[in-house]
Amino acid sequence: MRRAQPCAVFQTPHAMKRYQALADTMAAEIRAGRLPVGTRLPSVRHLTTQYGVGQSTVFRAYYLLEEWGLIRARERSGYYVAPGAMLATLATLATQTPAAAPAPLADPAPIDVSSLVFSVLDAVKRPDVAPLGSAFPSPKLFPLQRLAKSLAHATRMLDPWSTVVDMPPGNEALRRQIALRYIGMGIAQPAEELIVTNGAMEALTLSLMAVTKPGDVVAIESPCFYAALQAVEHLGLRAIEIPVDPRDGLDLDVLAEALDKHPVRACWFMTNFQNPTGATLSIEKKRALVALLAKHEVPLIEDDVYGELHFAQDRPPPAKAFDTKGLVMHCASLSKTLAPGYRLGWVAAGRFADDVRRLKLMTTISTSIPIQAGIADFLQHGGFDKHLRKLRGALLTQRDAMEAAIARWLPEDVSFVRPDGGYFLWLKLAGHIDAMQLHREALGHGINVTPGPIFSARHAYGNYVRVNFGHPWSGQIEDAVRVLGELVRGRG
Amino acid sequence: MRRAQPCAVFQTPHAMKRYQALADTMAAEIRAGRLPVGTRLPSVRHLTTQYGVGQSTVFRAYYLLEEWGLIRARERSGYYVAPGAMLATLATLATQTPAAAPAPLADPAPIDVSSLVFSVLDAVKRPDVAPLGSAFPSPKLFPLQRLAKSLAHATRMLDPWSTVVDMPPGNEALRRQIALRYIGMGIAQPAEELIVTNGAMEALTLSLMAVTKPGDVVAIESPCFYAALQAVEHLGLRAIEIPVDPRDGLDLDVLAEALDKHPVRACWFMTNFQNPTGATLSIEKKRALVALLAKHEVPLIEDDVYGELHFAQDRPPPAKAFDTKGLVMHCASLSKTLAPGYRLGWVAAGRFADDVRRLKLMTTISTSIPIQAGIADFLQHGGFDKHLRKLRGALLTQRDAMEAAIARWLPEDVSFVRPDGGYFLWLKLAGHIDAMQLHREALGHGINVTPGPIFSARHAYGNYVRVNFGHPWSGQIEDAVRVLGELVRGRG
Repeated sequence: MRRAQPCAVFQTPHAMKRYQALADTMAAEIRAGRLPVGTRLPSVRHLTTQYGVGQSTVFRAYYLLEEWGLIRARERSGYYVAPGAMLATLATLATQTPAAAPAPLADPAPIDVSSLVFSVLDAVKRPDVAPLGSAFPSPKLFPLQRLAKSLAHATRMLDPWSTVVDMPPGNEALRRQIALRYIGMGIAQPAEELIVTNGAMEALTLSLMAVTKPGDVVAIESPCFYAALQAVEHLGLRAIEIPVDPRDGLDLDVLAEALDKHPVRACWFMTNFQNPTGATLSIEKKRALVALLAKHEVPLIEDDVYGELHFAQDRPPPAKAFDTKGLVMHCASLSKTLAPGYRLGWVAAGRFADDVRRLKLMTTISTSIPIQAGIADFLQHGGFDKHLRKLRGALLTQRDAMEAAIARWLPEDVSFVRPDGGYFLWLKLAGHIDAMQLHREALGHGINVTPGPIFSARHAYGNYVRVNFGHPWSGQIEDAVRVLGELVRGRG
Repeated sequence: MRRAQPCAVFQTPHAMKRYQALADTMAAEIRAGRLPVGTRLPSVRHLTTQYGVGQSTVFRAYYLLEEWGLIRARERSGYYVAPGAMLATLATLATQTPAAAPAPLADPAPIDVSSLVFSVLDAVKRPDVAPLGSAFPSPKLFPLQRLAKSLAHATRMLDPWSTVVDMPPGNEALRRQIALRYIGMGIAQPAEELIVTNGAMEALTLSLMAVTKPGDVVAIESPCFYAALQAVEHLGLRAIEIPVDPRDGLDLDVLAEALDKHPVRACWFMTNFQNPTGATLSIEKKRALVALLAKHEVPLIEDDVYGELHFAQDRPPPAKAFDTKGLVMHCASLSKTLAPGYRLGWVAAGRFADDVRRLKLMTTISTSIPIQAGIADFLQHGGFDKHLRKLRGALLTQRDAMEAAIARWLPEDVSFVRPDGGYFLWLKLAGHIDAMQLHREALGHGINVTPGPIFSARHAYGNYVRVNFGHPWSGQIEDAVRVLGELVRGRG
């Protein structure tokens, strides 16, 4: 097994299989409205003749379309175009860049990633399934009892008028505590520009809404946190994908070219311990990124939810630290560091603070007032930094345990770049492995791994999986890695 | 003073004043992009000549444009087109209906209600201001200490895995409790179709997103809860306004005509104690409404946040009670009945439940897990129905006190229809009164009343104000009504 190898996916564009090509063709027909909802799809025999492919290719294409939510099977009656198929609106612009970019599409094309994501996410809820596919660390790593105490105390003490006063931008004590943490990163962040949100996801969505309108082009990463793809999709935006190298992150040359060639209205990037690759931009690259975007006056929506989970001594700074023009909207939360499920996040929205505040009022009005007060209490009295040190130590131990288990059980040709923070490994499998199929087979064995294609608008990364090491090591997890190895070898 | 008189505004279309017409004309120029952000507006002298109007008309038009957020004054330099002015996207389709409808616009026109709403709402936060303009009842009317106890208990008992398991659709115990309340209304509501949200506002927004795409036409009320106007605006939809009579609610004939003539994709109506009029649809009208929409297969987003605040013996049923096709998305919350600021709402989304659940996951991921558990605990053990009886009694007493104060202090030509629930009076003032100006003057005296124009995409209801009676009677409120009377008379 090779480690610390940059992944090769960007050098050798993912060769599309025949059934995928067929599925794409039919998906385009459906999304263009040429096959309206309820239409019965042609028979398998018809398609084998029409496209000159084998029956199994047609079946696999139908399987894929079903997975994307575009068609549904009716018993003994064939396949039909599914309701909701037309909701897909994500268009991907082709970057003209040759070597480093993912394979360009000939035309902007609508893409639906949501159905695929949801089918994968639904499995996370099953308690019997080994949580290698989870998006969160184990809830057992958090001081939930101490938090409960803060919440109880703060709620008991709550001034009834706080239900009015703590409306957006949010509870003042909380925003002061958050501003203090920015000072710890060397950032003088005015509390007035902080808007408290329902987790980072809302912060990111509102930030994106504040600086775009439907049809606009935004730059996202490839591979990309799937929720960013979904947000781009449901806001009716078009995405241009900028490659991320697992070793050193975003390709700034491709970004510069994209900014020159396309009317990019915003960027959404994860600068520290990127999901799924684990890549962190160096300080030099962050500076260069901020300068490049400032030159083009393009806002950066910075997703920094993993920044506090660093294994080295110091927290990597966010790009926000180098922002002099108020263009960086720094989004973060406590969901991965302290309070999963509390739904407490924020954005330091710079010059867009007032727009975000208004959008927040219009969509969810306010973040839960007791939650804001409880978290403020914890940040002041609960020992957050001590907890963070403990959490980082646990995650580091678990990373090493996961690496060792992978070395034990997975074939030699599996590679990844060791992350310096967060709780994900981005595994590159041999080229012939189909991650979607592996995902399904693993689920059948009670193991959830996250397949690469949900991190891409085009369902690229077909031989990658993301593995979560955010859970204390256990026999269940060791077994899961062992069985995963068997499944991968079985297909080798 | 006449009470219980139907308001006449729909019979005599609101005559637009010259300065309003001028402001509308210039707003259209700005929104069409013909006056880009930063453009200096023509001088007052120039406009008096160009449009043949007096200087005061131009000044008032500029004042209005400033209030809408479209222009900004710079000291000693004149007026400039403001940043953000182009965000306005709400277009209103003209109904062709003569008598009952508000004055039709010649063409679909973009309208910006948000800036106006925000300038009005910002005053609500000021603790020194008499809360006649508040959107909420007094927080003192709620059992906040008992709630705090439920929240503390539930959080202490929280299974760490609930942070995963209670993701959308939401906490199961909570959804069972909510389903039980539907049974109390005679509705067999499957808990699977209930999605827990961050208050009703998120339920309404997600429901609207689930059944529309940008550019679609939706039917809303006139006058209309301003947040519905904002939602329509920020989702890029077009609105068709259906008149609401304060006595018997929505005009179903106009709605039927609108459904015949326009491609209406959804309706957003408040069926019980409508905000701002207080109107409730009779059972017959609710039946007819559901049947009419079923005939056209148009979903109804039913905003029923005031339904529990009835002064008569029985809770008026929602339209959802008559829904046999799963087309009604019934949205409600506990923000006005139990837990202000907790941000706990839900939607019974019928056939759209899965779409709403997915949108929820995509935008805010989940409603705060401790909040869900705490509210579930209170609904089970906290005495919700007893609290509701007390709350209704208090609101009824306050309504009568407000009526008496209005009789004491306001002129005879002020009229309203007495509401049978909720906590708003919709006051019609004499035709020459400018509610926006009254609002500003009153604020100067430390009194907040909600001006009629924020309840309309066209800023109609220029001589209406909404008055909140949700606060226990006090000398401050009595004084506020007295001063309001003086201001109204001073302009008489």
